[in-house]
Amino acid sequence: MSHSEIPGGVTAAQGFQAGSIYCGIKAANKNSPDIALIVSNTKAVAAGTFTTNKVKAAPVRVSRTHLASPDVRAIVANAGNANACTGVPGLENAKRMCVATADALGLRRQQIMVCSTGRIGVQLPIEKMEATLANSAQCLSLNGSAAAARAIMTSDTFPKEFAVEFSAHGKKIRIGGIAKGAGMIDPNMATMLCFITTDAAISRTTLQKALSVSVEQSFNRITIDGDMSTNDTVIALANGVAGNKALKYGSKEFKAFQAALDDVTRELAWMIVKDGEGVTKFVEVHVHGAASLADARRAAEAIANSTLVKCAWFGQDPNWGRIMDALGYSGAKMREELVDIYYDGVLAVKGGMLAKTPFDKLREIVRQKRFTVCVDLNLGRSEHIVYTTDFTQEYVKLNMGDGTGG
Amino acid sequence: MSHSEIPGGVTAAQGFQAGSIYCGIKAANKNSPDIALIVSNTKAVAAGTFTTNKVKAAPVRVSRTHLASPDVRAIVANAGNANACTGVPGLENAKRMCVATADALGLRRQQIMVCSTGRIGVQLPIEKMEATLANSAQCLSLNGSAAAARAIMTSDTFPKEFAVEFSAHGKKIRIGGIAKGAGMIDPNMATMLCFITTDAAISRTTLQKALSVSVEQSFNRITIDGDMSTNDTVIALANGVAGNKALKYGSKEFKAFQAALDDVTRELAWMIVKDGEGVTKFVEVHVHGAASLADARRAAEAIANSTLVKCAWFGQDPNWGRIMDALGYSGAKMREELVDIYYDGVLAVKGGMLAKTPFDKLREIVRQKRFTVCVDLNLGRSEHIVYTTDFTQEYVKLNMGDGTGG
Repeated sequence: MSHSEIPGGVTAAQGFQAGSIYCGIKAANKNSPDIALIVSNTKAVAAGTFTTNKVKAAPVRVSRTHLASPDVRAIVANAGNANACTGVPGLENAKRMCVATADALGLRRQQIMVCSTGRIGVQLPIEKMEATLANSAQCLSLNGSAAAARAIMTSDTFPKEFAVEFSAHGKKIRIGGIAKGAGMIDPNMATMLCFITTDAAISRTTLQKALSVSVEQSFNRITIDGDMSTNDTVIALANGVAGNKALKYGSKEFKAFQAALDDVTRELAWMIVKDGEGVTKFVEVHVHGAASLADARRAAEAIANSTLVKCAWFGQDPNWGRIMDALGYSGAKMREELVDIYYDGVLAVKGGMLAKTPFDKLREIVRQKRFTVCVDLNLGRSEHIVYTTDFTQEYVKLNMGDGTGG
Repeated sequence: MSHSEIPGGVTAAQGFQAGSIYCGIKAANKNSPDIALIVSNTKAVAAGTFTTNKVKAAPVRVSRTHLASPDVRAIVANAGNANACTGVPGLENAKRMCVATADALGLRRQQIMVCSTGRIGVQLPIEKMEATLANSAQCLSLNGSAAAARAIMTSDTFPKEFAVEFSAHGKKIRIGGIAKGAGMIDPNMATMLCFITTDAAISRTTLQKALSVSVEQSFNRITIDGDMSTNDTVIALANGVAGNKALKYGSKEFKAFQAALDDVTRELAWMIVKDGEGVTKFVEVHVHGAASLADARRAAEAIANSTLVKCAWFGQDPNWGRIMDALGYSGAKMREELVDIYYDGVLAVKGGMLAKTPFDKLREIVRQKRFTVCVDLNLGRSEHIVYTTDFTQEYVKLNMGDGTGG
């Protein structure tokens, strides 16, 4: 029951259509589509995970209330404006986006999930959006995934799609997704949107359990600059068109579904990291031997978020003193004299001190575009992995803003 | 009893000498002195605060045990090598630095405070240092403060000295200090050394209380990149040469002493921030109206450590969305719709939304080399201030390392 990669993104799953339309919300790139639409042709259930930031964008608040609807049919998402810090008018506008989309598709407002990404603190051009959304049904197609993936890009440099299929109960089941990321990516979900579709028959609560597990081992383990956004959203729709017997939590078939969903979210999360602003390196930080899971996480995140560690990676420098330093202030239980550090399996630090490995060997590893830093705290059995990047001058340049406060 | 600024740094206080010697520990800048010495000619007491990093450099461990000595006479500090992550040999070397200094000055090992700053994970060239320290008494002079301040510089671009005097019990009392900073500066004290001398008569425990208060409102409130080092140390020596009646905790005279010490530490902390790596702006972040002191601190530090907020400042962009975002993930209790944000007293955000202030006015403020960001959470009465900087491409360049793992 292992799964395999297939093309098609969110339209790989049967009974889903997607597409994009141009409204003119993005300040730059005036001619590129900026609204994405994903629609199930038949009844579907939805699951979602949302930002833990206390400042929650209006669409996040609206989508959370729609999650419980017994038949969620569509996702509408715009780029160019986050509809965050927009107060009561912002909430009203998020609802109007749902209404306009529902009207165009012959649905009710509660059947629409709504997302926004882009500039904070500016009201949506809602009249213009309503006019555009009125004709949005035309944009939908059975191979519209790539168009939708492109429409939600902000500072992303490439669209992000991934899909897999596997068999259960003698039926082919497909899971596909699209995502956007770049900038403000942190383990607790940041300016990051991910939309997943599946034609599996699965209950809303079982889908939610599976999605939460998948998000925990993918989007919650990536970090670029440690900031967390107001808009992060992962939504999954399942419409049962595959015709399988509804997946029962804990069953063999459910486990196959979970593994496939894990793979889709992990691949999309990795694409987000690799497309981080100004990024030149993809680094896996493994912490082993921690006294607790919380300690393993703290240690891995301190390393992955240290600007000093990340600047050294950018400089191709296998600096381990800064890693020791980050471990020391991470809050994780540690004993300096027990710490071992490896680069791609090659020992760099033994017992908290420089190992005898020839330095050139370590330098060669850090020169690669992708490598692993493994820390063994030698205190317990807990471990954690975080996926991160280096930190570059280009990142600073990209985030200097344009002096317009946006 | 208000105090006034005087020249002289650590040798402004009577009965202290200082100086520097060249040993050749720094890799670059081969000819500049790299060991600083500060000595009291008469009996003195010491107070200290040290890094909270769990990875503590060898000199930090040694100095902490010497703090309790009834007569601490000298501080010896080297730049170029941090003597951190150096295991048992490192501890031995820190002790040997004390012994060599004590021998040169006719003192005992426990009378010496020892500090190191520089590269992590490399053993000190201890034989060479012992030979150099043997002749170190010659370098001392009554106006040697500037030389000592220069010797402890690593990536600092200017030496940091400040001194004040005030009167108590009819006697003039002087407090002076030198410091080094730059890079890895965080509220909980980071690659930062500060040495303070005073000729006040004050008990060890009273001096420790005063120093802890001063450090809390100065060095613990500055942040450049959020990293915390293994070597941070603030040491104060008091020798009573001023001839005042011993300062009694809580007395009017003690309060004058505290105010003067606060001023010395705050001025030195500000110099460290202004000299942060690649820094172009000095920003005070005030948070008011927090529900608790811990919340006020969390909120201020989240703003001051957000690379996105800091990149925007570098770009002269009065971006407030990123400030709202940082508040939201800070962990501080907040209600988005209550938040007001001011730049230099000018309202930018009212009730969590863009205020009506003309944008050009805000942009002009952020163009300055120094400005204040004030956040009112409008929830309670607690407040906190953090001093920070922008985040620049130059910072990344300075911290890329030289590929040598140091």
